[in-house]
Amino acid sequence: MNSIAVVNYAPEKGSVELRDIPTPEIGSEDVLLEMANVGVCGSDLHQWTADHSWPVNYPVVLGHEFGGRIVALGDRVTGWKEGDRVVSETAAVIDPNNPMSRQGLYNLDPTRKGFGYGVNGAMTKYVRVPARCLHSVPDAVPFEHACLTEPCCVAFNAVVENASIKPGDRVLVIGPGTIGILCAAMAKLYGGDVAIVGLEADRSRLKVAETYGVTSIVGDATDWAMERDGLGADCIIDAAGVSATLKMALNLVRPAGHISKVGWGKDPLQFSLDPLVQKNVTLQGSFSHNWPIWERVIALMENGQLDVSPIIGGVWDLENWEEAFNKMHHGEVVKSVLKS
Amino acid sequence: MNSIAVVNYAPEKGSVELRDIPTPEIGSEDVLLEMANVGVCGSDLHQWTADHSWPVNYPVVLGHEFGGRIVALGDRVTGWKEGDRVVSETAAVIDPNNPMSRQGLYNLDPTRKGFGYGVNGAMTKYVRVPARCLHSVPDAVPFEHACLTEPCCVAFNAVVENASIKPGDRVLVIGPGTIGILCAAMAKLYGGDVAIVGLEADRSRLKVAETYGVTSIVGDATDWAMERDGLGADCIIDAAGVSATLKMALNLVRPAGHISKVGWGKDPLQFSLDPLVQKNVTLQGSFSHNWPIWERVIALMENGQLDVSPIIGGVWDLENWEEAFNKMHHGEVVKSVLKS
Amino acid sequence: MNSIAVVNYAPEKGSVELRDIPTPEIGSEDVLLEMANVGVCGSDLHQWTADHSWPVNYPVVLGHEFGGRIVALGDRVTGWKEGDRVVSETAAVIDPNNPMSRQGLYNLDPTRKGFGYGVNGAMTKYVRVPARCLHSVPDAVPFEHACLTEPCCVAFNAVVENASIKPGDRVLVIGPGTIGILCAAMAKLYGGDVAIVGLEADRSRLKVAETYGVTSIVGDATDWAMERDGLGADCIIDAAGVSATLKMALNLVRPAGHISKVGWGKDPLQFSLDPLVQKNVTLQGSFSHNWPIWERVIALMENGQLDVSPIIGGVWDLENWEEAFNKMHHGEVVKSVLKS
Amino acid sequence: MNSIAVVNYAPEKGSVELRDIPTPEIGSEDVLLEMANVGVCGSDLHQWTADHSWPVNYPVVLGHEFGGRIVALGDRVTGWKEGDRVVSETAAVIDPNNPMSRQGLYNLDPTRKGFGYGVNGAMTKYVRVPARCLHSVPDAVPFEHACLTEPCCVAFNAVVENASIKPGDRVLVIGPGTIGILCAAMAKLYGGDVAIVGLEADRSRLKVAETYGVTSIVGDATDWAMERDGLGADCIIDAAGVSATLKMALNLVRPAGHISKVGWGKDPLQFSLDPLVQKNVTLQGSFSHNWPIWERVIALMENGQLDVSPIIGGVWDLENWEEAFNKMHHGEVVKSVLKS
Repeated sequence: MNSIAVVNYAPEKGSVELRDIPTPEIGSEDVLLEMANVGVCGSDLHQWTADHSWPVNYPVVLGHEFGGRIVALGDRVTGWKEGDRVVSETAAVIDPNNPMSRQGLYNLDPTRKGFGYGVNGAMTKYVRVPARCLHSVPDAVPFEHACLTEPCCVAFNAVVENASIKPGDRVLVIGPGTIGILCAAMAKLYGGDVAIVGLEADRSRLKVAETYGVTSIVGDATDWAMERDGLGADCIIDAAGVSATLKMALNLVRPAGHISKVGWGKDPLQFSLDPLVQKNVTLQGSFSHNWPIWERVIALMENGQLDVSPIIGGVWDLENWEEAFNKMHHGEVVKSVLKS
Repeated sequence: MNSIAVVNYAPEKGSVELRDIPTPEIGSEDVLLEMANVGVCGSDLHQWTADHSWPVNYPVVLGHEFGGRIVALGDRVTGWKEGDRVVSETAAVIDPNNPMSRQGLYNLDPTRKGFGYGVNGAMTKYVRVPARCLHSVPDAVPFEHACLTEPCCVAFNAVVENASIKPGDRVLVIGPGTIGILCAAMAKLYGGDVAIVGLEADRSRLKVAETYGVTSIVGDATDWAMERDGLGADCIIDAAGVSATLKMALNLVRPAGHISKVGWGKDPLQFSLDPLVQKNVTLQGSFSHNWPIWERVIALMENGQLDVSPIIGGVWDLENWEEAFNKMHHGEVVKSVLKS
Repeated sequence: MNSIAVVNYAPEKGSVELRDIPTPEIGSEDVLLEMANVGVCGSDLHQWTADHSWPVNYPVVLGHEFGGRIVALGDRVTGWKEGDRVVSETAAVIDPNNPMSRQGLYNLDPTRKGFGYGVNGAMTKYVRVPARCLHSVPDAVPFEHACLTEPCCVAFNAVVENASIKPGDRVLVIGPGTIGILCAAMAKLYGGDVAIVGLEADRSRLKVAETYGVTSIVGDATDWAMERDGLGADCIIDAAGVSATLKMALNLVRPAGHISKVGWGKDPLQFSLDPLVQKNVTLQGSFSHNWPIWERVIALMENGQLDVSPIIGGVWDLENWEEAFNKMHHGEVVKSVLKS
Repeated sequence: MNSIAVVNYAPEKGSVELRDIPTPEIGSEDVLLEMANVGVCGSDLHQWTADHSWPVNYPVVLGHEFGGRIVALGDRVTGWKEGDRVVSETAAVIDPNNPMSRQGLYNLDPTRKGFGYGVNGAMTKYVRVPARCLHSVPDAVPFEHACLTEPCCVAFNAVVENASIKPGDRVLVIGPGTIGILCAAMAKLYGGDVAIVGLEADRSRLKVAETYGVTSIVGDATDWAMERDGLGADCIIDAAGVSATLKMALNLVRPAGHISKVGWGKDPLQFSLDPLVQKNVTLQGSFSHNWPIWERVIALMENGQLDVSPIIGGVWDLENWEEAFNKMHHGEVVKSVLKS
């Protein structure tokens, strides 16, 4: 049986199209998942526009933010059954014997490969998923929300696991994309006194951020960062990643303060890190997420502490993937979601 | 009464000479300290060769690594008496009401000024020292050693307070100057499995490092860093500070590993920090030291855990300051010490 | 000039009465504060009912939760002026040279003495306060609220500094007195999924707790603690302190979980701590507070994150101290406040 | 094929004898290990003398501190081959889907069962071991040492993972049994200034402790704990576990200090924990160990940082198990080791 899929078939710009693909065969420790919803990630857009910086195993089905129901199980899978509502982590392939994996940090296993670039992703009807990737989705959480567990986990890791916020800390998030807005929401939830800063072009996305009760700033965040005692912000989340935003972060963070860097930027830094030394600052990289983070984010959705609906700009059929991609690419929506 | 002093009198290269200066007047919360020994710091050399990057209040007596005896006390000083053997911290001027100071982190008070550049230092007979800067030196610790408490505190802060080493951690120190060697010694003392890496020109200083029981490496430390499991070193101390050494640190640190940056480098970084994100690495700036660190380092000297004698390349009279400076400047000795 | 004061004049039960006392003389580093509001603490009640366990310097003016305006300053006080609105910390007497004080932890200086038992407190018109105890109160925060900074700081220390809560952590607070309710409010603010448990007699105080958005439980909290995954609560705050509540905490905390003990209990524990070992649990004592905690709690009141009005059961003149004490003693109100 | 085994066959005191048992059958994820050496643990003695407090699955082969060579592998085992030199962790049975296991903390999975009481242990020729329990032993480490990896891991967890020692910290270990001595050795290795305290009857075991460069104390450790500044020890490791030793720990720990409790004691505490609150102390339970701890301890043995030979009091054939047990039971040796 064949199903349509959004396939990235070549490294050239624009090499994405709908194709018919066969239902995947599953191994003894896998399940077959019938996709309900899949979020469009910035990295899907980057592979489409061919400005990504990671190796892609062409042709590959896009999509790694997804949830659905289990429709078949490998013979060694325990703890799951047909019909279970689940979301899947993104680390489709890992080495279980790698020292990072043995400590529960398989997200930092250098051999890790993810859905949507390393193996076939979820922008299709049926996805093969290793059972170790699964998390149960309570009935109270609709798949349109649950499929966004993944970017919420990125934010949780950047703001909670890789920072240390205390109630009332002044937290400045740089960059109001999906990750930046979710970082701001998470920092707010964590007790922070939070602002998010962007450019003129980000005004509509900053409006979305404001629904999480955070202050939005266009342009220069210096006044906000220095407002309390003139020393700077307690914590800065760099969700943009370019040289200029890290420089801003170093300028605006207080002595003994903390910067979480979750945004990427392949260009060289154009400044010295001497302020990091002089102010005794922590600069913490944050990458991906692991099992306990997934469980926790789902719990936050279930108990109502975390609501992702403000960032969802629309839900499209797989057939209309290109409109969904375009809306997000042009900043008209923060996040596009597809359905099967 | 006048005494000779090693004075840095102007911003031009080589503007250091012996001058006669009057005995300082002390305030009600100061003591007058009769200097016994004073270490020569790289920053003294930098002011001499005029390649420093901080504001200097010319003319100024050099020297901020010092110990001696109290010979007079201001009327509000409690807890000290004439004849007490002491060393002095370096933060000669701070704002006690600054939020950093109120938390015991006066070393990070942006208004802080130190001996030897902001106010007169210790390369002379009598020094005015605020009583809050003093620490008692046990009889068992000679002044020639005690005067080096300051660089040991820099190392303690970089390796202990601003890192988190576990017994058996692979720790790589980059840069075998005074601070680098003391960082290696401290990491060894902390249970690390330690190596220090330098250049061909550093061979004699690497020999000194070896006396602390650490491995020395000339050139490429990759094999050593990858030896245990191929993932990299648990902790890297960048005591060099230039762009190339931080790049080396990012390459050689393991996922979820730690880099302490105690070395300075005013040139822009010439690479992207994406590996910091991808490997979820902590990059921690480390600056100066504070009261509990001083007490602890003195305790380590007293109980014999820390021996600074291997790094002392000689002791010179103040009159022979230039030879002491030259020996250290040319790398013939790790550390020069002066006596009054 | 004399003013009335609520004075605890002897160790016998009920030895509290209104007395006329002279305006205190201040030292060179003190201010004279004109009290605006003072909260009644459980420890004031304990001294009144003579079931306290600490030494009291009879006769002594009660009251250590207070704010007001500066009306006179010692000649060495800097940074403050007449008319400033302030609250005062409680550590009236400390040894500034004690190692704990030198690290900013003067609250743990064993020689510390507090207002209301060691030196005269604030249930009167004028109070002598060392300038180092002062914190500025923004105009937006009324004194009736600001005077409760102290118990909020106790809660902040117990929940934030002496625990480590992540968003969504299940946090169970035992004991709905002032400190318990404020701990629950703080844990909620910190992102916790919070419940507070009490007895039948606590129902009205549990109602007050609910205004902070936390779940209230009468009796057995086991179901709530085990609800998520059967392993127990992430964090338990024991604000009651007796043997039975710590046993409950050990039973309900999850493996590798955390218990903060802020409540006191002078009776011996009647059980073994083997579950602490077997579950690898942290039991953390929490005592008092220090400078950065006070600044932070005031910031939380100013920016609206923390509202103490729900716990205030009434405001009485000093003359009516006995009614204020009685209402609180009988659990009719959570917190009584006096005014001058 | 049958082999002899030291079997604990009933709950009555003394119910241990040599029996012939068949070679175990292994499952698809197990290996068959040919035992080289097995350490005698206090818990083996407790089952022998029937004063243990855990459920035992009679009859059961004793012994959970062991190493040997792989002689057969299940069909799904990867990464191992016949002849590999290995040691085995103790958690023979765990639920891999338990939330603790999913985070790498399977040692805290409440369903965990260990070798020697839950399933057959290693005091025999062949042992069935799940492959996930295995760790490679370098040729440089003899099995007589490697078999003691387990108690070293208990000490590492108590001193390193569940405490936080800085170089020069005054660390007091209470109780000079195997675990206490290894805790002292580990604290020394971690940079501590270490003492171990015991009773008159412990003098010979204290002598063994001294070989690790730590101070030994008979009776009252107060002077040692207060020696530096009168406030107490930075860290106390309670490896005895009874009520009296925890009381000693609370008395001798400094404000804001740390107590690791690794010793068990089934009797109720006979004192109040108010000093824990007043001194803001951390009391941390420490149980067992997990994968990264095992890897680390083996690395410490390999690089020479940790030498277990001082604690080994003799090596006996399985046939002479009773002498080995008796020597250790009567305190004539710290640790007995058996060989196959």
